[in-house]
Amino acid sequence: MAGEGQQISLLDGKEDKFGGVEVNLMEVESMTVDDFDTKLDLSLKAWKDQGKKGIWVKLPRERSSLVDTAIKKGFTYHHAENEYVMLTSWLGEEPSTLPANASHRIGIGAFVLNKNGEMLVVQENSGYLKDRNVWKVPTGTIKEGESIWAGAIREVKEETDIDTKFVEVLAFKESHQAVWQRKTDIFFVCELEASTFEIKIQESELSAAKWMPVEEYVNQPFHAEEGKEMFKLIANICLKRSKKEYMGFHNVHTTKSLKESLYCSADQSANLLSETCDEASTSTSL
Amino acid sequence: MAGEGQQISLLDGKEDKFGGVEVNLMEVESMTVDDFDTKLDLSLKAWKDQGKKGIWVKLPRERSSLVDTAIKKGFTYHHAENEYVMLTSWLGEEPSTLPANASHRIGIGAFVLNKNGEMLVVQENSGYLKDRNVWKVPTGTIKEGESIWAGAIREVKEETDIDTKFVEVLAFKESHQAVWQRKTDIFFVCELEASTFEIKIQESELSAAKWMPVEEYVNQPFHAEEGKEMFKLIANICLKRSKKEYMGFHNVHTTKSLKESLYCSADQSANLLSETCDEASTSTSL
Repeated sequence: MAGEGQQISLLDGKEDKFGGVEVNLMEVESMTVDDFDTKLDLSLKAWKDQGKKGIWVKLPRERSSLVDTAIKKGFTYHHAENEYVMLTSWLGEEPSTLPANASHRIGIGAFVLNKNGEMLVVQENSGYLKDRNVWKVPTGTIKEGESIWAGAIREVKEETDIDTKFVEVLAFKESHQAVWQRKTDIFFVCELEASTFEIKIQESELSAAKWMPVEEYVNQPFHAEEGKEMFKLIANICLKRSKKEYMGFHNVHTTKSLKESLYCSADQSANLLSETCDEASTSTSL
Repeated sequence: MAGEGQQISLLDGKEDKFGGVEVNLMEVESMTVDDFDTKLDLSLKAWKDQGKKGIWVKLPRERSSLVDTAIKKGFTYHHAENEYVMLTSWLGEEPSTLPANASHRIGIGAFVLNKNGEMLVVQENSGYLKDRNVWKVPTGTIKEGESIWAGAIREVKEETDIDTKFVEVLAFKESHQAVWQRKTDIFFVCELEASTFEIKIQESELSAAKWMPVEEYVNQPFHAEEGKEMFKLIANICLKRSKKEYMGFHNVHTTKSLKESLYCSADQSANLLSETCDEASTSTSL
């Protein structure tokens, strides 16, 4: 505790757009538990007096000794990443309107066709299809900040060394309680066009990979098993697509917003773009 | 520290499918920092000897005093929710293969048509369109564990009291660094069919709501502004859809997997289902 006559400063907070305060201790070199305790008490009183509502405190891993203090003063966890934990406290009288944590994980399955109309199939070293002799499409998880089309291209390259171009999203599957028994997984089935042919497998993940006729893939006994309707449905979409009897969503960029892209039905998107976005460009391989 | 002759137990860990151990302290009534410190040391040694790799420790908010101890022993944050923080430590020699945290947030925009072919538009109390007299579609964030179609129906009901039926996903937009300057937002544009007509606005969020001809919505000056190409593109998709010149992705359920549903092109999905999934059912209003 500070003695009489000693000036105690508040925590260094930045006002946000929603009437709240963000305290970021990522760059703070040191702070004792006592110091944090005192400053947090005074700051919370000041913010409450000022009518502030949502209080955010970001603590780097190096300041983990302060977590307990914040929790004891009524903060809850909001989210965490490897290098930090974000704590929040709601000072408003009404129910909290703080935005939710990230809630979903995004996966891709890659339907990769070569020039002979064959598709790329793999067998994995682990997981529940291991040792079942089932051929599946390359799959993976989209990284934070990565685009769906880019993640599909990356996964195929990592697993099989095949270079590809993104064509379209054929469908997507929503699976609840798929991650940590609580987060939802959205799995995008992406069509890719191979520009190289020679497969070199990533041995840490795959036991085999090869090119296979689409019909052979679809007709694997696995797809006829009880409870595998979703696999078979997706396999059939791939088959229809290979016969040009199916159309998914193309990826449309506008030059003005490079952090954004839109996936929509393809025939219309080209027309829509020329009608509405003079400076827009359509690209499948940005 | 335990004295000689006293038996010290390890932390109660459950083996996972990936050669790791999960320690869940959610139900533990009490544990002192010293006790946790000693047990964690012994447990880590034992797990290492057993060749365990990924170690997970789940600490409830009530055990926040233990966070610092785990971090000091080499754990990092993995993720957190209001009521707990999940810490991980990788004991393997090779790079960590622990799965990633949730990385995305999912939003919806609702294109709601009534029987007169008018669409539901709103003005919000806050956000960057406030006081600009721009009419927009109802939007919102999908909750953890909620389906896209269900979240769209819920948001429209909450904001305007209009009851709706889900029709299809018209398009989706991927926006990077949209949440916490790092998480990606995927925004699904959903078409809904209104089954009630009388609007009652949620006053905490909206300043106004009404039915508007689709052309009038599309032709708002806002959509012609520089940098608003993405808004205009989505508006045009809604217009084309209202003229039956556009088709998105329907929602297909199979009875076997109630936690999963597939969004795919509509004409094909019905055929695919009858061909492949005897017990499958198509529903847009489950």
